[in-house]
Amino acid sequence: MAKKASVLLAHGSSDPNWLAPFQTLLERIRGDLHDSERVELAYMELAEPTMEHAITELVAEGYQQVDILPLFFAAGRHLRKDVPNMLEALQQQLTDQGYDAELTLHSPIGLEPEMANAISKVVVRKLSDH
Amino acid sequence: MAKKASVLLAHGSSDPNWLAPFQTLLERIRGDLHDSERVELAYMELAEPTMEHAITELVAEGYQQVDILPLFFAAGRHLRKDVPNMLEALQQQLTDQGYDAELTLHSPIGLEPEMANAISKVVVRKLSDH
Repeated sequence: MAKKASVLLAHGSSDPNWLAPFQTLLERIRGDLHDSERVELAYMELAEPTMEHAITELVAEGYQQVDILPLFFAAGRHLRKDVPNMLEALQQQLTDQGYDAELTLHSPIGLEPEMANAISKVVVRKLSDH
Repeated sequence: MAKKASVLLAHGSSDPNWLAPFQTLLERIRGDLHDSERVELAYMELAEPTMEHAITELVAEGYQQVDILPLFFAAGRHLRKDVPNMLEALQQQLTDQGYDAELTLHSPIGLEPEMANAISKVVVRKLSDH
């Protein structure tokens, strides 16, 4: 059976204040998963580690399937064009280096029902606070 | 007592596929609120209605306090500089027009505990799906 890993993909920012909550979130998610499940955090642009770097490291460690889960609210140009293009180029590069890796880009987590529930709860709570 | 309204602020995109889920979310949130609570959706850039337009309309309708709730994962340059600058300019413009309006920018909803819970749940579920 192929070894699997996952990459949580955030947009990225040059502002460390923007990045910090994602690191906290990664620790939280790791705590909620079994120890055997490998999850890394990476950024599409403007911050390290880049998506390409995170995936390449995992593949070099022997992971043959990598799921990319976008921490985005919705799918616009980035998730419809930029990221697929980046993954296609990376896939080719990995193949050229002799790796047999399957990279799967998932839909943005913002579209999942748990997220709409949570956003609505936060907004209702914030509006009743004042 | 001052009449209050809220604006859900999303980043915005030129891609209608990106915008659609936010409209769905607005309807969901309106359904979860009391009928008397006025909530609008607006975008920081690249899409209509703009934040300035939505706020100006509300103030012209008689709302004296407007809460701006950012549908962002975290606070980077946009929420630390761009949006505060836009709101300061708008506040001045409204004052010059004779309106007495209080505009309050809240922290991004992504930093609320409900959101970390939901994101972790979605990721754990997605990873156990395959």
